[in-house]
Amino acid sequence: MRKISFVFCIHNHQPVGNFDSVIEDSYRDGYFPFIRTLDKHPRIRIVLHVSGALLEWMERCHPEYLDAIYKLVTRGQLELMTGGFYEPVLPAVPDEDKIWQTRKLSAFLRRRLGFEPRGMWLAERVWEPSLASAIAGAGVEYTVVDDSHFKSSGLTEEELLGFYLTEDQGAVIKVFSGSKRLRYLIPFADPEETIEYLREYASEKPGNLLVFADDGEKFGIWPGTAKRCYEDGWLERFFRTLEDNSEWVELVTFSEYISKHPPLGWVFLPAASYAEMMEWCLPVGAQLRYKEFLRSLENRGELARYESFVKGGFWRNFFSRYPESNWMHKRMLFARRQVVSASSAGASGEASVPAALNEVWKAQCNCAYWHGVFGGLYLPHLREAIYRHIIRAERMVAETGAGISAPTSVEHVDVDGDGEDETILSSGEITCYLSPLSGGTIVELDHRGFEINLINTLARRREAYHDQLKTSSNPVKSGNEVVSIHDAVTVKEERLEELLFYDRLPRVCLLDHVLPPETSLSQMQRGSFEELSDFVEAPYERKEDAAEGQVVLSCSGPVRLEPVSVGLTVEKTVSLSQDEPSLFVKYALSFDAETSSALVFAPELNLLFPSGSGLNGTVYGPGSEREVLALSKASEFLGARELRVRDKHFGFDTVILFENATKLWHFPVRTISLSEGGLESIYQGTCIIPAWLLPPGSTQLYLSIVIKLEDRHHTQTADSDLEQ
Amino acid sequence: MRKISFVFCIHNHQPVGNFDSVIEDSYRDGYFPFIRTLDKHPRIRIVLHVSGALLEWMERCHPEYLDAIYKLVTRGQLELMTGGFYEPVLPAVPDEDKIWQTRKLSAFLRRRLGFEPRGMWLAERVWEPSLASAIAGAGVEYTVVDDSHFKSSGLTEEELLGFYLTEDQGAVIKVFSGSKRLRYLIPFADPEETIEYLREYASEKPGNLLVFADDGEKFGIWPGTAKRCYEDGWLERFFRTLEDNSEWVELVTFSEYISKHPPLGWVFLPAASYAEMMEWCLPVGAQLRYKEFLRSLENRGELARYESFVKGGFWRNFFSRYPESNWMHKRMLFARRQVVSASSAGASGEASVPAALNEVWKAQCNCAYWHGVFGGLYLPHLREAIYRHIIRAERMVAETGAGISAPTSVEHVDVDGDGEDETILSSGEITCYLSPLSGGTIVELDHRGFEINLINTLARRREAYHDQLKTSSNPVKSGNEVVSIHDAVTVKEERLEELLFYDRLPRVCLLDHVLPPETSLSQMQRGSFEELSDFVEAPYERKEDAAEGQVVLSCSGPVRLEPVSVGLTVEKTVSLSQDEPSLFVKYALSFDAETSSALVFAPELNLLFPSGSGLNGTVYGPGSEREVLALSKASEFLGARELRVRDKHFGFDTVILFENATKLWHFPVRTISLSEGGLESIYQGTCIIPAWLLPPGSTQLYLSIVIKLEDRHHTQTADSDLEQ
Repeated sequence: MRKISFVFCIHNHQPVGNFDSVIEDSYRDGYFPFIRTLDKHPRIRIVLHVSGALLEWMERCHPEYLDAIYKLVTRGQLELMTGGFYEPVLPAVPDEDKIWQTRKLSAFLRRRLGFEPRGMWLAERVWEPSLASAIAGAGVEYTVVDDSHFKSSGLTEEELLGFYLTEDQGAVIKVFSGSKRLRYLIPFADPEETIEYLREYASEKPGNLLVFADDGEKFGIWPGTAKRCYEDGWLERFFRTLEDNSEWVELVTFSEYISKHPPLGWVFLPAASYAEMMEWCLPVGAQLRYKEFLRSLENRGELARYESFVKGGFWRNFFSRYPESNWMHKRMLFARRQVVSASSAGASGEASVPAALNEVWKAQCNCAYWHGVFGGLYLPHLREAIYRHIIRAERMVAETGAGISAPTSVEHVDVDGDGEDETILSSGEITCYLSPLSGGTIVELDHRGFEINLINTLARRREAYHDQLKTSSNPVKSGNEVVSIHDAVTVKEERLEELLFYDRLPRVCLLDHVLPPETSLSQMQRGSFEELSDFVEAPYERKEDAAEGQVVLSCSGPVRLEPVSVGLTVEKTVSLSQDEPSLFVKYALSFDAETSSALVFAPELNLLFPSGSGLNGTVYGPGSEREVLALSKASEFLGARELRVRDKHFGFDTVILFENATKLWHFPVRTISLSEGGLESIYQGTCIIPAWLLPPGSTQLYLSIVIKLEDRHHTQTADSDLEQ
Repeated sequence: MRKISFVFCIHNHQPVGNFDSVIEDSYRDGYFPFIRTLDKHPRIRIVLHVSGALLEWMERCHPEYLDAIYKLVTRGQLELMTGGFYEPVLPAVPDEDKIWQTRKLSAFLRRRLGFEPRGMWLAERVWEPSLASAIAGAGVEYTVVDDSHFKSSGLTEEELLGFYLTEDQGAVIKVFSGSKRLRYLIPFADPEETIEYLREYASEKPGNLLVFADDGEKFGIWPGTAKRCYEDGWLERFFRTLEDNSEWVELVTFSEYISKHPPLGWVFLPAASYAEMMEWCLPVGAQLRYKEFLRSLENRGELARYESFVKGGFWRNFFSRYPESNWMHKRMLFARRQVVSASSAGASGEASVPAALNEVWKAQCNCAYWHGVFGGLYLPHLREAIYRHIIRAERMVAETGAGISAPTSVEHVDVDGDGEDETILSSGEITCYLSPLSGGTIVELDHRGFEINLINTLARRREAYHDQLKTSSNPVKSGNEVVSIHDAVTVKEERLEELLFYDRLPRVCLLDHVLPPETSLSQMQRGSFEELSDFVEAPYERKEDAAEGQVVLSCSGPVRLEPVSVGLTVEKTVSLSQDEPSLFVKYALSFDAETSSALVFAPELNLLFPSGSGLNGTVYGPGSEREVLALSKASEFLGARELRVRDKHFGFDTVILFENATKLWHFPVRTISLSEGGLESIYQGTCIIPAWLLPPGSTQLYLSIVIKLEDRHHTQTADSDLEQ
């Protein structure tokens, strides 16, 4: 009889920082009913990976899930896999963390679930050849990647019916190949189609193996799948179909298969992930060309023959595509260096260092660093979580006395490793990262107590799928049909295409615009304004003789006025208050001649209000007049002197003071991105631009901006109608 | 004026183990005239990498070359690059060796040539993303890879006119992009064509850069290029053309360029090498499909648009394509483990351990591990050099008392890391590696004094270019025209296609064939014989109760005889002499019933005689009769009892004794491979098959084989007519 071995392997994970309510829904719709269904089928044996991040949540919120897994483990129904505890994409983290995070999850499985894992789930199946030695160093014997990884090395479908050995620096691990075809069949096609596919590879010779290895969220959590899998009974039918065919379909776990069959040989896999991921990490232009290429091969019927030579991009280029992701990543590494050096310096209170390292590990969770079909980087709450754990790790180091010290300190450090120093201004509560060479901007502004980076605003960038909004006046609406989310493009909101603006500059603070006087709010919002100078991107010089605790940056350049240009020197002095969490910026502008026409000086701020754009703020005018500012809309105020946003949920007010600003512009920065549910707009932060009008004949301008966080737990505000 | 910066970077290297005479010719034809030409053009400034392996040879044989380089360095005409000292493909060696070998070359450049290198030449431009941290760890600031590496990440030609930053685990290095177009123009097209190409990318905006980075052997050493470059004056003209255009073509070195221009951004490069290499490392079937794909895209005019998505294989798969390469590589790593553990064990004579590690580094030289246009793995003398340095390292460890110890020891160790133990039988002079699971074969047989692996025979395998021999009855002969060697396929010998046989089995020793009695020498040579049993690949069991100093392997299986099959147990006992470098193999065959028809038992040996196939041997018959055996030809001897081959050059006799063999077959194992000069056949070893005829009704057979090395410096042989 022709037989086949079949591994059914699923991976459950929720991002560090995801909303409790979302995870709770996922538990109810997917994780729990899956395990309950499995419990009813004692002959069905699967391989399960649950990330440490999700296991910790389960232990806190649904310990019965762990009990249920334990029961299935003791019944022999489950083989558990280890992995990086907080699900880092392994190549993005230091080798020690690859190993230590894996050991941490293995220890959890051993302690809580009574299982000694032999295999490792690779986050997002992002493989690099040097991983073999790191994984082996964590005591891992095998892992599973996509069949496309193997095909890239020249192997054919027929050569993938088993496992291979791979090696790095003498360390050897076993690698299994997960079938792309099965990923598309399960759970989207009838169970019989999976059986038919298995039959194609069944053989008289024992040992032929097919592997399904994919996200557990496909079973109830992806849109439409809860109904399909449980209400309509797909999973029940799938298990029954496997039981009905158990004579020739042998459900095995990876470890069992290894114990019965030798490897098929050696293979060396290039850097790869699943095919969709390798498309997403390409620059937009390349992505579109890549899709076009695939389509043209498909149309000619040549795709199957040549597909193994057609490759997308490389995962790590999410860092080059998205500077915000790169900065978070380099900041995580910077925090780690502080933790490690505090640890090796043997500072007092060293006991807290392992806890600080654990915070760094949480900040390594992959989800916020990239973007594909899932929100990822586009979700502010995930980025906030990364910063929260970075800042918390640094706070823990500071508490040992080994980190950056109060009162206000100024340090020049190459945080991101690009060869140019950033300037770090730090008081007890506030840390401010300035990039002198990039327009003298503030790229990060942390409040240590609230564990928040106030800036953290994602710029609006072109995505390959935006073209579908622009070309189709009648985009596909979400229907009832369940299709693989890799295929689906639905639009969750009306008129999204009207929000498609792209930013030339990063959404940071102190972008020093010099604008024509007629510039409008709408132009600022659309990014279609004219710039009369180049200060926004120019290298600012650090004045070395600045007083202690402050940074003075200056830059000179022409302002293109009609009829004659004039030279302008912008000097900005940035300092922190010793007593309260406040940042002061003083500007001194001096022209080398009288200006020949009017102009506007407008330093741009971008701040992410963590409760989102639903809040209102209050704008105070020159006297006591006040107006309501809705973060969700763009508006312009004349003669504003203060803007205050109360965040009741997070317990603080953000106050921005402008001295004598002519007007104040603000608008929400909204991106259009793809999620499991379709295209949607997301609030990424608020752009706040105080603007000063200078009449013709001006020679100088002095102004100041203060950004202040008022802790609502500690301060009193007379202004009771802020409580709206 | 539109300007462009141009880096002209060349890399000179000769394989560890290459013939002195070949390197001498290369010096005369290429290395020396290049430097002499450069010396005449003080305005021409280039970047030069010379591998440590070649520098050591120069220091020994042509110290004036180093003096000339020193002069050009002090004149500011040369920037020198470091690299792995013995030119390892970096991903194939442990991280410490990547760093230590690089530091060794940097130290050499500093000491002998007065230059502190900032950049690194990557052997064969084999890049993997994790290299960034290893290279940075060696104090390297930049490297140069191919433009195809960058295009794989989605960058376009226009985005490559400078350098990028890349990062691994927080370590950052700079990467330059070498132009493929320039690799094809220089020195194959007129210098003006290079100028025209440079002109295309010249720009008003300063900083546009193009880089030529390629092998120095293109200038005088590749076939036809000595005439072109020097006799016809191509290089002189090229330099003059650059001088004539120096107003807008600024010749710079990498370091100068870095000091003047910022990086273009961040990029993350996947595992890659130059496009040709990535083709060569594919399996043959995939290679042919890949070429076909490229051709079809080219014919449709779509190659330029989509080329960046079309990728070949992954370098490390040379280890899966060629088991001989994999075994050498894993043996190198095994020797390294011995060196490191001897070193950390603090064995007596530890001073010799760094020297032993240096031998391991020599054994890491990339050339013998792969094959493309250059001979590489197909060149026995390069493989011999790898084994020489592996064995020498192990001898040095043994001399510290920390390694495998005499008298005869038997160890079971997983040498290659495939999860199955090899058996290592070792006396003072001989070390024998048995693979019980692969037919109980001897896969390596080392003589420590002669530093030689007697087996080291490459099997005959299909190569993609063989198809050109088979399809064309009139292959292209080498002409006078100089074309890039990547394009050229010429045939250096007549009737090569008649040698195209492919081996199903590795060319090792003790392959236990059971054959029909009518099997012919020619069938054995062509690999077209019928096998009556499966012993050649079957797993042999180790008998645990073997006497000390010997290994007993046994295997049972059916022999497919007519009219009835019979069960056979083959037991072989392998031992080493305590007194002389001899290996004894005793076979005991027992059938579980009388054989129903005649059969031949024929254990196959494969030995590489290091002086090549030009030697003659002597075969002794049952009495005192003797016959001459020419290693270059196939022949059959009846009733042979001894075969002796005297290698005057290496100073030893190889003696093989067979007890009562019915006949002896031998033939040279010749491969057809591609070299710079075209297709050629190469002697890879001698297949020696003693055969015993068993008549019908047999129930058992006892036989023995002895392989002995007689040191001609120490022993006397009465037999003076061996001196032929």
